[in-house]
Amino acid sequence: MGVEQGRGMSGYWQLDDVLSGLKTARDRWRDAHPRNREHGSAVFPARRTLQEVMEILCGVLFPLRLGPSYVRADNEDAYVAETLENGLSHLYGQIRRELGYSAMGGADDAAVDAEARRIIGAFAHDLPAIRAMLDGDVEAAFASDPAARSVDEVLLCYPSLLAIIHYRVSARLHRLGAPLVARIIGEIAHTRTGIDIHPGATIGRNFFIDHGTGVVIGETALIGDRVRLHQSVTLGGPVGPIEEGRSRPRHPVIEDDVVIYAGATLLGRITIGARSIVGGNLWVTETVPPDSRLEASPPRAIAG
Amino acid sequence: MGVEQGRGMSGYWQLDDVLSGLKTARDRWRDAHPRNREHGSAVFPARRTLQEVMEILCGVLFPLRLGPSYVRADNEDAYVAETLENGLSHLYGQIRRELGYSAMGGADDAAVDAEARRIIGAFAHDLPAIRAMLDGDVEAAFASDPAARSVDEVLLCYPSLLAIIHYRVSARLHRLGAPLVARIIGEIAHTRTGIDIHPGATIGRNFFIDHGTGVVIGETALIGDRVRLHQSVTLGGPVGPIEEGRSRPRHPVIEDDVVIYAGATLLGRITIGARSIVGGNLWVTETVPPDSRLEASPPRAIAG
Amino acid sequence: MGVEQGRGMSGYWQLDDVLSGLKTARDRWRDAHPRNREHGSAVFPARRTLQEVMEILCGVLFPLRLGPSYVRADNEDAYVAETLENGLSHLYGQIRRELGYSAMGGADDAAVDAEARRIIGAFAHDLPAIRAMLDGDVEAAFASDPAARSVDEVLLCYPSLLAIIHYRVSARLHRLGAPLVARIIGEIAHTRTGIDIHPGATIGRNFFIDHGTGVVIGETALIGDRVRLHQSVTLGGPVGPIEEGRSRPRHPVIEDDVVIYAGATLLGRITIGARSIVGGNLWVTETVPPDSRLEASPPRAIAG
Repeated sequence: MGVEQGRGMSGYWQLDDVLSGLKTARDRWRDAHPRNREHGSAVFPARRTLQEVMEILCGVLFPLRLGPSYVRADNEDAYVAETLENGLSHLYGQIRRELGYSAMGGADDAAVDAEARRIIGAFAHDLPAIRAMLDGDVEAAFASDPAARSVDEVLLCYPSLLAIIHYRVSARLHRLGAPLVARIIGEIAHTRTGIDIHPGATIGRNFFIDHGTGVVIGETALIGDRVRLHQSVTLGGPVGPIEEGRSRPRHPVIEDDVVIYAGATLLGRITIGARSIVGGNLWVTETVPPDSRLEASPPRAIAG
Repeated sequence: MGVEQGRGMSGYWQLDDVLSGLKTARDRWRDAHPRNREHGSAVFPARRTLQEVMEILCGVLFPLRLGPSYVRADNEDAYVAETLENGLSHLYGQIRRELGYSAMGGADDAAVDAEARRIIGAFAHDLPAIRAMLDGDVEAAFASDPAARSVDEVLLCYPSLLAIIHYRVSARLHRLGAPLVARIIGEIAHTRTGIDIHPGATIGRNFFIDHGTGVVIGETALIGDRVRLHQSVTLGGPVGPIEEGRSRPRHPVIEDDVVIYAGATLLGRITIGARSIVGGNLWVTETVPPDSRLEASPPRAIAG
Repeated sequence: MGVEQGRGMSGYWQLDDVLSGLKTARDRWRDAHPRNREHGSAVFPARRTLQEVMEILCGVLFPLRLGPSYVRADNEDAYVAETLENGLSHLYGQIRRELGYSAMGGADDAAVDAEARRIIGAFAHDLPAIRAMLDGDVEAAFASDPAARSVDEVLLCYPSLLAIIHYRVSARLHRLGAPLVARIIGEIAHTRTGIDIHPGATIGRNFFIDHGTGVVIGETALIGDRVRLHQSVTLGGPVGPIEEGRSRPRHPVIEDDVVIYAGATLLGRITIGARSIVGGNLWVTETVPPDSRLEASPPRAIAG
C-alpha cells in the first residue's frame, strides 16, 4: 500500500492523546442519552452477509439468469436445492441477530430461536409467490420500455428489476417481523441502483421503474397495480415539522395504472387517483381524482 | 458467516415444498409466453467479465492514470501491448456469447465466429480514435469546472469521465452489432456513477456532465459538440402510451453548445437549438429555436 | 472467463496498428498543451488505498458499529489502538503522494516529508473532534426521520451518515493542505451513496440529508447548524459563463435551521436566510430573507 515499512512513523502523531480523546468522545456519546447505550454491545445484523444472502436468493429465484454461469437447464433443479438451504441458513442467522439486538441484551435465547424459526419458515414458504410477483414485474418492464430487446435483457440489465427483487424480499421480511434485516437489504439495493424503497411500503403487481436513479418510496406508501415511475420520483413524507408517532401513515397512496414522470415530488398522505398521469418535475401535495393529468407550467423564454 | 454449523436447521423450513413451488413458478413463466423461452438456456454475456474488460480498456486507453500503479513512463508501451491482447480476447468471448444468444440456439458456429471476428477487429481498429475523443471530453471537463485543479484530477476523480469512457466504448460496440454487450457496459457505468447513457445515443465531441448522478440519456438521443449537462438531467422518451416500433427516434436532439442545468426533463423528439441555455428543474416537451434561454417560473414566497 | 485458450486469436485484430495508433494519440495529448504533461509521470494518490483507509477510519471512529464483527465492548480500546496506527500510516503515504504530485516532479523530498508529517499530525489530533461532530449528525438524523428505530440503524443503514463521515474527514484534509486526497475521499462517498459533497464546502453541526441520492454541494457552499436537505438538492455554481478564478466563492450560503425539500436547485452566491423552508423542485437564484417559505407554482390540471 505504498508505505515505507519500519520507518517508525509513530512519532508523526501523538497516538496516546488521540486514543484517549476518542475514548472520551465515545464515553460522552454513551452517557448523553440512555437511548445511546440501550442496545449495549448487542450484535447488529451484518450488511456483508446479507449481500451474500441476496446474491444467493437472486440465483435461487432466477437460476438460469442470475445464478452462476455453470447453471444450465439440466442442473438448475439441483443448483436451487443445494443453494436455497445455504441461503436460508445464513438469513436465519441474521434474523436471529436482529431479534437479539432488538431484545436489548435481555433476550431469552429459546424465545428468540422460536421467533426466528417462525420468520424463516414463513419466508421460505413465500418464495414461490415472490418469484411469481417478480415475473409480473419483468413483464411490465418489457411491455413499458421500447428499448428492451428481450425479457432476459430486462432481468439482467435493468436496475429497476434488481431493486424490485430486493424490495419484494425485504417487504416480506419486514411484515414477518425482521424490519432491520429488511432495511439493510433495502439499502443494499439503494447503493447498487440509486433506488431507495423502504421495506414498509406496499407495492402491487406489475410494477416498473424506468432508469430509477433517485427514486424514493417512503415507509407507508401504498402503490396499486400496473404503476410506472420514472427516475428521481419521490413519494415522501409531508412538509413541515416532524410529528410524533413513528410508522403512522404519512406517504402518498398511488392507485392502479398511474404513471409518474421523472423528478416529480409527491409528499404527504395524499391520493393520486387511478389512471392519472403526473408530469415530470412537479411538486404535488394535494389529492387528485382518478384520470387526472397534471403538468408543470411551461418554462419562460427569456430574450437571449 | 455467523451460523451455527451442524445444528440441522433444515427442519425450520419445508424444503421440498419450497423447491417444488419454485419449480412450478419457473415452469409457469416459461409456458406463459413463447417469448419467455425463445432463447432457451443460451448463455448470456457476463457482467462480471465485462467489468474486468472495462478495467483493462481503461488502463489501455490511459495507462499512466487508469492503469495499475506499477505502470510508469518507461514501461507504458509494454504494458499496453500485453494488456490489450488480453482485454480484446475476453471482449471477443462476450461478443460471441451475445451472438449465440441472439441466434436463439439455432446458431451456425462458423457464422457466429466470423461475425464476432468482424466486430472485434473493427472495434480494436477504432480504439485510438476513441482515445482522441475522450481527450476532448477531459479538456471540456477541465475548462468547464472551476473546481478542477488538473486534467489528471478530472480523469481520476470525475464520475462524468468514467461514464463517458464506458459510453464511447459501448456506443462503438452497439453500432458494430453487439447491443447487449454494449448495454451491459452502459449499466456497469450506471451502477458506478448514477449516470445512465444508452449506448444507442449519439454524442458529439467535448461532452461534459457536471456531477452527473441521475442523468438519463435515451436510446435515440442526438447530442452535438461542446454540450454540457448537469446532474439529474433527463433526455427521455415522449409522454403518453408506448408506441410500436422499438428503436424508432423518440428522444431529444440537442444541438451544439447547449447547456442544460440540474434537474431539467426534456422529453420526446424535440430539438433544442444551438447555444440555448435550459434552466434547471424545467419540464420541456417542445422544440425551441437556437439561442433560446429557458427558465422556470420564480417560486412563490408564502407568508411564514 | 469463457475464452478458448491457445486458439491464436491475435489474427482477429491488427495489434501493431492499434498499438501505434494508441501511442500516437497519447503523444498528441501530451504535446497539445504544456499543462497535459506538467505532472510528468508523478504518482497520483490511489483511490483503492484511500478506500481501505476510510474503512479503517470508520472502524476507529465507531468501533462497535462500523468496525469488524469481532470488536466487542471489552476489546474496543485495543482494536482502536492497533488499527489507528495502521490507518494513519497509509493515509500519510497517500498525502505524501499528493504533495509529490503537486510539486510536479521538482519536489524536495525532505520538504515534502515535513509537510506530510505536519498534515497527518494535525489530522490525527482532530479525530476526537470529528467523532463528536458526527455524533451530532447521528442525533440529527434520528430526530428528523420518523422511520428510524434506533441510533444504530441510522449509523449502519443511512447513506447520509456514510457520506457525512467521508465529508468531515475530507473537509479536514482539504483545509490542512491535501485537497486531492480529500477530493478522492469525497468521490468514494459519491460512488457509494450518490451524495456529492465537495471537501471545500463548510457544513455546521447536526447536519442531515434524507435519502440523499443526487445531492450536490459545491466547493464554496457555506451551511449553518441544524440544516436538513432532502434527496436531489443542488447547492451549485451560478448560471452563465465560467468565470476566472478557481475556488472563489460561488455557491449558496444556507443559514441555520433551513430545510430544503427534494429536487430544489439553488445556484450562485445567494443566501437562504435562517429558518427558511424551501419547497421541492424549485429553481432558486436569488437571496431570500430569514423565515422565508418558498413553494413551486401548483401544477396545471389538464382535461384528460
